[in-house]
Order: sequence, then structure tokens, then C-alpha cells
Amino acid sequence: MKLALDVMGGDHGPPVLVRGALRARRELERPPELVLYGVPEAIRSVLAAEGEPADRFEIVPTTENITMHEPPAQAVRKKKDTPIVRAMGDVRAGAVAGVVSAGNTGAMVSAAMLYLGRLAGVQRPAIATWFPGRGDGSIVLDVGANADNKPEHLFQFGVMGSLFAEAALQRARPRVGLLNIGEESGKGSELYVRAHALLAEAPVDFIGNVEGRDIFRGKADVIVCDGFTGNVVLKLAESMIGFMVSRFRESVLASLRGKLGALLMRRDLLRMRKDLYYAEHGGAPLLGVKGCVIISHGASNDLAIRNAIRMAARFQELRTIEKTESLLG
Amino acid sequence: MKLALDVMGGDHGPPVLVRGALRARRELERPPELVLYGVPEAIRSVLAAEGEPADRFEIVPTTENITMHEPPAQAVRKKKDTPIVRAMGDVRAGAVAGVVSAGNTGAMVSAAMLYLGRLAGVQRPAIATWFPGRGDGSIVLDVGANADNKPEHLFQFGVMGSLFAEAALQRARPRVGLLNIGEESGKGSELYVRAHALLAEAPVDFIGNVEGRDIFRGKADVIVCDGFTGNVVLKLAESMIGFMVSRFRESVLASLRGKLGALLMRRDLLRMRKDLYYAEHGGAPLLGVKGCVIISHGASNDLAIRNAIRMAARFQELRTIEKTESLLG
Repeated sequence: MKLALDVMGGDHGPPVLVRGALRARRELERPPELVLYGVPEAIRSVLAAEGEPADRFEIVPTTENITMHEPPAQAVRKKKDTPIVRAMGDVRAGAVAGVVSAGNTGAMVSAAMLYLGRLAGVQRPAIATWFPGRGDGSIVLDVGANADNKPEHLFQFGVMGSLFAEAALQRARPRVGLLNIGEESGKGSELYVRAHALLAEAPVDFIGNVEGRDIFRGKADVIVCDGFTGNVVLKLAESMIGFMVSRFRESVLASLRGKLGALLMRRDLLRMRKDLYYAEHGGAPLLGVKGCVIISHGASNDLAIRNAIRMAARFQELRTIEKTESLLG
Repeated sequence: MKLALDVMGGDHGPPVLVRGALRARRELERPPELVLYGVPEAIRSVLAAEGEPADRFEIVPTTENITMHEPPAQAVRKKKDTPIVRAMGDVRAGAVAGVVSAGNTGAMVSAAMLYLGRLAGVQRPAIATWFPGRGDGSIVLDVGANADNKPEHLFQFGVMGSLFAEAALQRARPRVGLLNIGEESGKGSELYVRAHALLAEAPVDFIGNVEGRDIFRGKADVIVCDGFTGNVVLKLAESMIGFMVSRFRESVLASLRGKLGALLMRRDLLRMRKDLYYAEHGGAPLLGVKGCVIISHGASNDLAIRNAIRMAARFQELRTIEKTESLLG
């Protein structure tokens, strides 16, 4: 299996992304064959610095790039020689099986819609991401492919999320919950009341409404919400972990006793950080399009990239796309 | 100033609520005169256990109660002899200046709408709550008085939130942000795009959109959102603090080194907990109704109740209601 990796996206650029590719190659059990999309000189200089041969990976040279703050739909139409657009074209042509990028999320969604299109029965794609929590954590979707959703979209997210959770959490029959402001079925905005009624008839194990407090409690394996709410929730949760860590540093490490205490619990704190750390779970797939599209966090380090590549490989192996089409199409 | 306290609401009932009243009486600088609404025998048995005289507080005896899971609007219409309904009636009649309750939030909102009504210029009331964060934290509203909002409601929340933040955060000109999925003004759902345009013209210091990640970063003093999103965000944030603490316990306190380390940093950890702890800030006011209505968390302890009483007193002193009417009415 061939996989496209955009090495120009993200906050850190080629050095981190090429090192992520090298880690995937070395560390994964069945590493996919990686094709690197980007500026060849930049790629080769990282390879040289890492003591790797210049032809370690197949390279697709590109000359342009979409930055993090460009209006995505426009950028995708204008800038054809970017890693995201070239890679999507190659997924469409069947030259690669999927694409991993830490670049502009909106550009990834726009390019996927334009070049790959939606799966039959899917009106809107959704970004599904892993949240930590009791047990194995949960999959939340949509976390940002959409700004406004309709009840039918949430129904489709429930089905796609359930199929993806089978792959990502390795669960036979994932419990699907609808994010809401109360447990009872009549609760919530009109959108959520109607989505609840649709999900009750969906071919998934729908357990009803779950609340904000249930996200970290492992009550559901899949949590369905509209893209606006999901994006707010994702960014809040990410920053909250950072906020707690910085408060811990300020409060505790300011005193000598605290420093000594932290030294003693260093190993445990590092393990805890690993459990909560998004990078461990790799990227977030864009579900509902005709191809495997994995969106990594802009701040990804090489470990996160390695794991996003592992996620892409697993996504393919478990035939998530084929299963989605057979249920919704 | 006389203040009504519902001693039957909340998860812990009269013992915790009466102890909260006693703490307010002992510990606040200018304690309001408290009137306790509930079953007299239950109140007197707590007073006896605390070694206090049976007539320490004025008591308004009630025979019924609204539980946490009753449909609120219905319960308020049917059960007239409950602390919430009786206290709202007394606020309306001018017998007490405000009411504090840790009971059913929906019932508080319904009873306030029915007995007090909305302030001129306010279409929907909003619950405003304090979030921890860099600096003094921020005020987020609405966190649950509404399931569906219109752009004009968010405009009114911005004005009410700004006036309340002057009182709660003691800031002269609070920075007001609109919770959204991107910083640019065109971002978000239709509701948020339109609310942005209205807030840009509001008589407040509107700083534009803020994202989920900004809530803990102290970017805005007031964060405006619809009641659905706010309620999800509030419950998520509360549970996340609990989740991080329990993960810390599991990871760190499982080892002897970790236990010893925690012992060394005990004082700092307690201080950090205090900084983050909602109870320290007391209850959340229901803004936009004709009276001072403070909603406490169902899980409130006596400290939280004491602080909710302090919040009610401050709310009155700062004439938040009169200021709101002069700006919106």
C-alpha cells in the first residue's frame, strides 16, 4: 500500500514531517510505502542530516504551499502545485491509497470534496478525533469539517463514527451517544431533538444522549455532534490539558519541596502525559469521502506523524470506506 | 438586605445548605439577612447539631420540593409550595431581594420567567458562570438557560455579560469575545456570523471571535455563546478537571515514590485545586430577569453556598439589574 505524506504542512515543516516518515518506516509493524510530497531539496537535507540515503522515499516535487491562514476553498482552486492538491489528485487516480497532512484543515476538506467527492449516502464529511477518557477514550465527530449541520448529517456521522470506532478502538459494537444538554430524549435544540429521533433508528448501538461531562467518563465509544460544537469542544479540551500542566508548573514547581516532589513522581507524570497525549493516537480521519484522508494537528511532532501514518494503514486494512458505503449507500 | 435561600435543593439537602448559611453569616464581611425556605424540622435539626439556636434564621416553611429530574416548567406550575416557587413569589412581592438555590436549574429558570419576568430589552435570560483561566478567569454565558438561540439573544448576552463581569471580575471595561470556530469575522455557523455583526455594534468592548482554546487563556473577560454550546462546554470543563485529578491519583499515587512526591507538594496542590475550584466562585446568576437569581451547582458544598450568597450580595450592591435596563431597555 502506497501512502502520500505532505511534508510541507504543519507548524514545523519538513524536518519534523520527514523524521515522522522515517520513524514510521522503522517502527511500524507493516509500514506503508510512503511517497513524500514537497520541495525535494528540503526533504533531502533532512534525510542527509538523519544519515539516510537521499532516495529513501519516493518524492513528488511540489512548488507551492497552502499556509495555515489562507481561505481554504479559494487556495485549493488556485494553487494546484501544492502537496495537498497533488496528493488528492493521486488518490483519485489510484496512484496512492490515501494522504496524511498536518496542513490547513479547511484546505484538506475542500480538496477532498473537490477531488474525491462524497461517498454514496453521505451528505457531509466529518472529522473524527480521539478523546482521552476512562477506558480507551472515545471518538468524537464532527470536530470541524462543518459549521452548520442538519439532523440527517448527525445520523450519518453516527453510522460513520461507529464503523471507524470498530477500527480505531477495536470494539465489536461501539456504543454511540449523541452529545446533548440532558439525558432525556426530548432535550436540546431542535437540531438535536430531531437527530436523536433519527439515530434511534440507525444501524448502530445508539445509547441516547450523553452530556459534556460524559466525554471523559467513557460512557460512549462514539460521540456525535455538529461540527461547530465539536470544534469548540476539541479546542477547549486540548487547551485545558495545557492549562492544567502550566498551572501545575506554576503552583508546584515554584517551591523547592514541590520540585523535589515532582522529581520523585517524574516517571508517573510522564506516563500520565502519554496517556492523555493526542500525539499518541495520531491524526483524525476525514470520514465520508472517497479515499483515506488523515488530518494531523498542525503542532504535530514526529511521533504524531508516525501514528497518523499507522492510522491511515489501519483505516485501509479495516475497509472502513467499503463498510460505510454498504450501510449508507 | 434580605435574601432567600432554598435549603431543600441540591444533591446534599438541608445539612450542607444550612451549614452554608451559617458560614455566610459568620464569614462574610457584610452578610445579607438570610431567610431559609424549606422543612422547618430539617432546618432545626441541622441548627441543633451545629450548636446554634433554633431561631438563628427566619424560616419560610414549605411542604413540597422539585427534584432534579422533574420536567421543570410543569413542576413549577403544579408544585406551588416549594422553596423555589415561594421564594420567587417573595422576590416579586419585594419581601426578599433575591434567591439562591442549588436545586433544579430548569425550575429556577421557569419560575424566574413566570414570577419575575424579563427585563425590558431582554428576549432571553442567560446563566453566566465563571471559568478558571490565565489571570482572573472569565465569565461564560449562556451555559444552559436556552437550548436554541437567535443572533439578537447573543447580542443581549454580550451586554448583560459585560455588566456582570464588571461586578464579578471587578474590571472597568471587560473584553467581550464571541465563542467561535475561527478568529476571522466570517467564521462559524449562520447564527454566529450574524451575532458577530450585531456584537460589533454593541455598547461593549467587543474583541471579536475567540476559540475553544482561548477559554483558559484569558483572552476575553466575557465569552458569549448559545446555551447549547455553553452547557456542553461547562459540563466538559467541570468533568475534565475531575478526570485529570483522578488520572493523577491513579498514575502517581500508585507508586511509593509518587506518594512521597505528592506528600512533598501537598500544599501547592491544594492551592492549585483552590484556584481551579468552582466552589470558590459561588453560584451562577440568571441574568436578564427582574430580580437577583443565583443558581448553585447541585453538588455544592457549604463553601460554595457561602460564596453564592456572597455573589448575590455583590450583585445587588453593584446594581447589575438597573444598569442592564438602562443599556438594553
